[in-house]
Amino acid sequence: RERGRRVIESPRFQQAITVVILINAATLGVETSAGAVARYGTVLHVADHAALYVFVAEILAKAYVYRWRFLRDPWNVFDTLIIGVSFLPTAGGLSVLRALRVLRALRLISVVPSLRRVVSALLTAIPGMTSIVVLLGLVLYVAAVMGTKLYGASAPEYFGDLPTSLFTLFQVMTGDGWSDINREVMDTHPSAWVYFVVFVLVCTFVVLNLFIAVVVSAMAA
Amino acid sequence: RERGRRVIESPRFQQAITVVILINAATLGVETSAGAVARYGTVLHVADHAALYVFVAEILAKAYVYRWRFLRDPWNVFDTLIIGVSFLPTAGGLSVLRALRVLRALRLISVVPSLRRVVSALLTAIPGMTSIVVLLGLVLYVAAVMGTKLYGASAPEYFGDLPTSLFTLFQVMTGDGWSDINREVMDTHPSAWVYFVVFVLVCTFVVLNLFIAVVVSAMAA
Amino acid sequence: RERGRRVIESPRFQQAITVVILINAATLGVETSAGAVARYGTVLHVADHAALYVFVAEILAKAYVYRWRFLRDPWNVFDTLIIGVSFLPTAGGLSVLRALRVLRALRLISVVPSLRRVVSALLTAIPGMTSIVVLLGLVLYVAAVMGTKLYGASAPEYFGDLPTSLFTLFQVMTGDGWSDINREVMDTHPSAWVYFVVFVLVCTFVVLNLFIAVVVSAMAA
Amino acid sequence: RERGRRVIESPRFQQAITVVILINAATLGVETSAGAVARYGTVLHVADHAALYVFVAEILAKAYVYRWRFLRDPWNVFDTLIIGVSFLPTAGGLSVLRALRVLRALRLISVVPSLRRVVSALLTAIPGMTSIVVLLGLVLYVAAVMGTKLYGASAPEYFGDLPTSLFTLFQVMTGDGWSDINREVMDTHPSAWVYFVVFVLVCTFVVLNLFIAVVVSAMAA
Ligand code: NA
Ligand code: NA
Repeated sequence: RERGRRVIESPRFQQAITVVILINAATLGVETSAGAVARYGTVLHVADHAALYVFVAEILAKAYVYRWRFLRDPWNVFDTLIIGVSFLPTAGGLSVLRALRVLRALRLISVVPSLRRVVSALLTAIPGMTSIVVLLGLVLYVAAVMGTKLYGASAPEYFGDLPTSLFTLFQVMTGDGWSDINREVMDTHPSAWVYFVVFVLVCTFVVLNLFIAVVVSAMAA
Repeated sequence: RERGRRVIESPRFQQAITVVILINAATLGVETSAGAVARYGTVLHVADHAALYVFVAEILAKAYVYRWRFLRDPWNVFDTLIIGVSFLPTAGGLSVLRALRVLRALRLISVVPSLRRVVSALLTAIPGMTSIVVLLGLVLYVAAVMGTKLYGASAPEYFGDLPTSLFTLFQVMTGDGWSDINREVMDTHPSAWVYFVVFVLVCTFVVLNLFIAVVVSAMAA
Repeated sequence: RERGRRVIESPRFQQAITVVILINAATLGVETSAGAVARYGTVLHVADHAALYVFVAEILAKAYVYRWRFLRDPWNVFDTLIIGVSFLPTAGGLSVLRALRVLRALRLISVVPSLRRVVSALLTAIPGMTSIVVLLGLVLYVAAVMGTKLYGASAPEYFGDLPTSLFTLFQVMTGDGWSDINREVMDTHPSAWVYFVVFVLVCTFVVLNLFIAVVVSAMAA
Repeated sequence: RERGRRVIESPRFQQAITVVILINAATLGVETSAGAVARYGTVLHVADHAALYVFVAEILAKAYVYRWRFLRDPWNVFDTLIIGVSFLPTAGGLSVLRALRVLRALRLISVVPSLRRVVSALLTAIPGMTSIVVLLGLVLYVAAVMGTKLYGASAPEYFGDLPTSLFTLFQVMTGDGWSDINREVMDTHPSAWVYFVVFVLVCTFVVLNLFIAVVVSAMAA
């Protein structure tokens, strides 16, 4: 087991895995082309399965070597989940699950140290953001309920029901085409600009403060 | 009265109020669905009224316990106003007031300490912004008067009167679809690009400095 | 002359001027409404002229009191230019000059100390930006010449001549509707995405560094 | 050779080169106008060739003076490449190479010290960004493969093949018109909003952290 650990933690082994991940990412990309599948379908299929076997073998080897400490490392959990997706049944129209197989390329993050460090740094910024994100969610929810009640009847494509309104307001929050929606709603509700302008201003202000919170905590670190 | 204060300030009491707010927010959301109202209309109505009674009772209890200090806490004023909206007459087509009832969900902010802290922090950033916001308002006003005079006749949907121009310029300021408006105005006024480009540059520069003011004051704190 | 200086620098005097500026700004705004002009045309005309006389008198008084030091204060130059615009001939279709009269409202900046301070602070940020702005202008120019040569023939509305290309690229730089233009150009030049993506990336990167330069110099101050 | 070095490094010489670059940039700009070419075609042609000769002579003189140290200065390499483009064959429909001649105007950067300093500063920010840029590229690639598999059949203009999907997702990343694409895809795949909203949130978060990394490293310097 000690020898296994030395093999698994050797740079050679990790480089080999990195290469397999990159090749697998490439074959999954090539598979999106119908022409390439028609010509090299078998090769792609074999390469994909071979990569999957390598990944499964790697996870089993790690689980054997590290035992119960294996699941303590969140990156191992991440790898296991991403590989596990490939074994879910894809029959019955679940083409989404087939598409999720590409997530395997994200294993690059857990294997390349500099990417791992960057993502860890990104994740540490999240706890400091929760309060503002909850606040933003609350503002979005309240605005969506109001929007559905006020404009649901006259602009059903944008405010027809609560999920539609939430999506519309997320769109407004990103600033993409909000004024088109606003002008359309204003055809029937001339005072709708109050609703939109207040929402845009509040969101911009809260999001700005979200950014500041992240910057300030990044400076402190 | 001392016993009342201890009850009101106990974590249990505040957790109970939080739960009522969450349930009420959910029922107000469900009410936006015509189907749900048709089926569970009575239940929703009862739940809504029950929550309202709880909130009124809470405010009265606090007013009794804290007396004149009650109105000194701006959060109590906030709660009272938000609940007060529910008692305004909704007859006569004032569906806006009915929609404003959802604002009750914002009571979550005054009840959850971390949200309260975040919003307080946001509000402290406002005084440092007033001068720049006034400047931005002045720029917007001057540009709107100029836009109405120059393009009001040829592009009435965007610059027909002062409020329309103000809305259009707010839209330009957020950067949403400003070039479509510009190209349309340029059909009749080929030099209109000067007006728009100068406005976009001035606004971007002022807004950037607004952001910096907020960041710098956040860093100092 | 000493007495005149004391009057001009007294808070009372400045408050009076501020009030005149605000009233004049309001009348200029009301003048944009054809209905209001039809009804109160004479009143508005008189109010506008009265304000103008006040401003001219103020400038003359200042010039008399401060003599040659008058033109040393850039704010006095600013005020004089803005008032001078009102005396340019507006005949011959020069409606632009009529519209420029609203700039008088900007005198609020030179009169209200806090606005004056904010604008001074904004202006001090400009010297530190010149190099990056020149660089951005150079990038814009080079890209415009290339765009005109490559796409001028097939997409004349966006790249017909150099000024048109410059405007289009300014639009792309603000991120407004750039992908619509790109997709349209790609109909005839499938590889045009290289041009646009490189331009967007370079501009975003340079603008980001422009923002950083401003933030860093603001922090240092 | 020592005398040559003194001439080349004298401010006079560099000013002369700067003037030639500016004139050449202007003539290349004028050349975009078919009317100007019809009238002053010969003059423009001569001016362009003269400038090119000056640049070639300058590079040869520098190469003679500095010998092998010439290629050590990256700015000399930059100048040589930009001038070299003008000697590539432009026959056979390679109008792109003709358009690339305008890149010569970018020589202004290597000649004007303040621009040189700004660009050097920009370039030093790049190494600190590589990890996050690689991460962003990985996210883009994974999302593009998924998008092609899921929506390639029903929305071929946006997700028809891998390059198309990559371009679409770059567009979504810049926030330009993403909701139009989303609403169109949602006509056939009602749950497509999950894909887009997750992508927008992840990208915004990663890009935000990219900005922060640049700001923090700029502050440290
Ligand atoms: Na847009
Ligand atoms: Na936009």
